[in-house]
Amino acid sequence: MVDCVRVVVDAMGGDFAPEEPVKGAVAALAEREDLHIILVGQEDVIRRELEKAEYPKERLSVVHAGEVIETGEPPVNAIRKKKDSSIVVGMNLVKKGEADAFISSGSTGAVLVGGQLIVGRIRGIERPPLAPLIPTERGMALLIDCGANVDARSSHLVQFAKMGSIYMENIMGVKTPKVGLVNIGAEEEKGNALVKETYPLLKECKDINFTGNVEARDIPAGVCDVVVCEAFVGNVILKLYEGVGATMLKKIKGGLMSSLRSKIGAVLIKPALKETMKAFDATQYGGAPMLGLNGLVVKTHGSAKAGEIKNAVFQAIQFKQQRINEKIKENMIFGQDKQEV
Amino acid sequence: MVDCVRVVVDAMGGDFAPEEPVKGAVAALAEREDLHIILVGQEDVIRRELEKAEYPKERLSVVHAGEVIETGEPPVNAIRKKKDSSIVVGMNLVKKGEADAFISSGSTGAVLVGGQLIVGRIRGIERPPLAPLIPTERGMALLIDCGANVDARSSHLVQFAKMGSIYMENIMGVKTPKVGLVNIGAEEEKGNALVKETYPLLKECKDINFTGNVEARDIPAGVCDVVVCEAFVGNVILKLYEGVGATMLKKIKGGLMSSLRSKIGAVLIKPALKETMKAFDATQYGGAPMLGLNGLVVKTHGSAKAGEIKNAVFQAIQFKQQRINEKIKENMIFGQDKQEV
Repeated sequence: MVDCVRVVVDAMGGDFAPEEPVKGAVAALAEREDLHIILVGQEDVIRRELEKAEYPKERLSVVHAGEVIETGEPPVNAIRKKKDSSIVVGMNLVKKGEADAFISSGSTGAVLVGGQLIVGRIRGIERPPLAPLIPTERGMALLIDCGANVDARSSHLVQFAKMGSIYMENIMGVKTPKVGLVNIGAEEEKGNALVKETYPLLKECKDINFTGNVEARDIPAGVCDVVVCEAFVGNVILKLYEGVGATMLKKIKGGLMSSLRSKIGAVLIKPALKETMKAFDATQYGGAPMLGLNGLVVKTHGSAKAGEIKNAVFQAIQFKQQRINEKIKENMIFGQDKQEV
Repeated sequence: MVDCVRVVVDAMGGDFAPEEPVKGAVAALAEREDLHIILVGQEDVIRRELEKAEYPKERLSVVHAGEVIETGEPPVNAIRKKKDSSIVVGMNLVKKGEADAFISSGSTGAVLVGGQLIVGRIRGIERPPLAPLIPTERGMALLIDCGANVDARSSHLVQFAKMGSIYMENIMGVKTPKVGLVNIGAEEEKGNALVKETYPLLKECKDINFTGNVEARDIPAGVCDVVVCEAFVGNVILKLYEGVGATMLKKIKGGLMSSLRSKIGAVLIKPALKETMKAFDATQYGGAPMLGLNGLVVKTHGSAKAGEIKNAVFQAIQFKQQRINEKIKENMIFGQDKQEV
C-alpha cells in the first residue's frame, strides 16, 4: 500500500465556502489513492455538503472548528484570539505532525501570520515567503516573495532564490531554473540599496542558476523561472498583472462591440481567444505556496473554485513526495556551512 | 504678436535620430504660431534633414553640438565629460534662460542626471521626479516617480503628490485630481516603512485631493489620476504595464491564427482592435516630464517618432503658458509656510 499524504482543506475559507472547498477535496480523493483529506470547519455544515457527494469514507475525516476568520479582520489578532477557527485548528494539525499540508482560500493575512506563528519556520529560514505562479509567454514563473515580509533584507532574498529554485525544479519540473533579481535596469550597478546588496550575494550562490537582474518589462516574456523580489514589489507585480490583464480584456471586448463587422468577428474568434486565455491562467497549478515552513501551507484565491482546490491538493501531494522541505533543509545547512568556511 | 515659447529639441537622441526629431519639430512649427524651435546636434546632419522640409525659417534655429551621448554610457560620466553633447548643450540653453524647455529621446539616465546637474532644481524641491502618463480605463494617470531617485524619503513623495496634482490639473485638465499612494493594501496601517510614514503626511495636505492607498490592481482601472510611489516601484509599474500588454497582445494574436474560423474573425475585428489599442497609447500626450526643475525637461521614448516629438513640443508650450513652474513654486512656499506655523 502507498503512503498517504495527509492534506487539510479549510472548508470555511473563501467566497465559495463550504461548497467549493468540499467539492475540490472530494474530486481530489477520486483521482488519487495516496491521499487522505481532513476537512476542517463547522462540522454540521461540512457534513451537509458531504451528503451530496460520493467519496471513500476511510480517506476523509472531518475536524470541527466552530469559528471563522473573516477577510477584513486584523490577522495577528484573529490568529491569537480565534483559537477555534478553521485556520488555527487546521494549522495546528500540521504543527503536531497529524497532517502534511494546509490549504485555505481564506484571509491571506491570517494564513501568512498563522503559517509563521503556528506551523513555524524551518530552522535557519529567516522569513517564509509566499510564492505564487504567474503566467508568462513560455509557461509559468514563480514570483517570490508576495507575502507580508515588507522591508526585507538581502539575506532573505538569497533564501527566496534558493527555495524558489528548489520548488520550480521539483514541483514544476524546470531543470536548473533561471533566477532573476527584479531591478530597474539590467546592469549590476543599478538599483536601490537592497538589490545592490543582494546582487553579489546571488552571484556567489553555487547552488542556483542566477542570470542577473530582470526588468519588469521582461517578466511576462518569461526570461526567468524564479522572479526574486521583496514582498512590496512582488505584491505590485502580482496585482498589476491582474489589473493590466483585466483592463486590456475589457478594452478589447468593448472595441469588439463597436461595429457590426467587429461583432461578427468577435463571434468567430471567441473559442480561440478563450483557449488562449486559459493557457494564461495560473490557477490550474493550484495556489501560492508559503515556503520555508515545517509543513506546507498553500493559499488559494479567495474566489477559488473546486478545480483550483483540487489542483492545490495535488500540489501538496507532490510537495511531500518530492521531499521539498528536506531539500530546503539540506540546502540551508549547506548555506550555513559555506559561511563558516 | 503672441509670445513665443522656445523649445529645444535634441536632434541626436533616440533610435530614429535625426530624421524623426527634426520631422516632429517641423510639424509642430506648422501647427503653432507661438513657438520657436531650437534644434541641437551636429549642424551638418541637421541642415541636411532640414533641406527636405518646408518651415518658417525665422522660428527655427540650429545650435551645433558635436558630441552624442550613447544609451549605454554611465550617465554621470557622460554629462560631466561630453560638454559638447546635444544633451549638455541643449540643457545649458534652458539653464541660461535662452529656452523654456528641452526634449530628448536620448539616454534616460543622461537626461535625468543632466536635468538635476545642469537645469537644476527649483528651490525647495528635494528631488525632481520623472512622471510618465500611463493609460487607464478612464483615460490617463500620471505615474510619479519613475526616475532615478531610488530609496526616496516620505518628504519626497509628498512633493511628488503636489507637483503631480498641479500637472494633471493644468496640463491634462483634470479637476482636483485624485491622488493615490501605491500600497499593498487599501488600509492605512498596511505597507512598508516608507508608505506608512507617507500616508499621514499626504492626509494632512490641504492642497491635494488624497484618496488614500491604491493597490496596483486598481491602477489600470483608473481609480486615481496621480499615482504616487518611489522610483523603484514606479519603474516596475511602468515596465510591467508594457510587458504584460505586449505579451497579452502576442498571445491573443497567436490565438487568432490558430484556426481558419479565428483567422477570418481576426480580419473582421482588426480595425476595431486597432482603434481600441490607439486609445490605450500614451505617446499621443508627448513624453514624460521631469518636474521640479528650473525649466521643463521632457523625456520621449527612445523609439519616438515625429508624432510623439510634436506632441511633446505642444506639451512644453502648455507647460510654459499654464505657468506650471510658477504654480509649483507658490505651492512649495505655501508648504514651507505651513511647516513654520
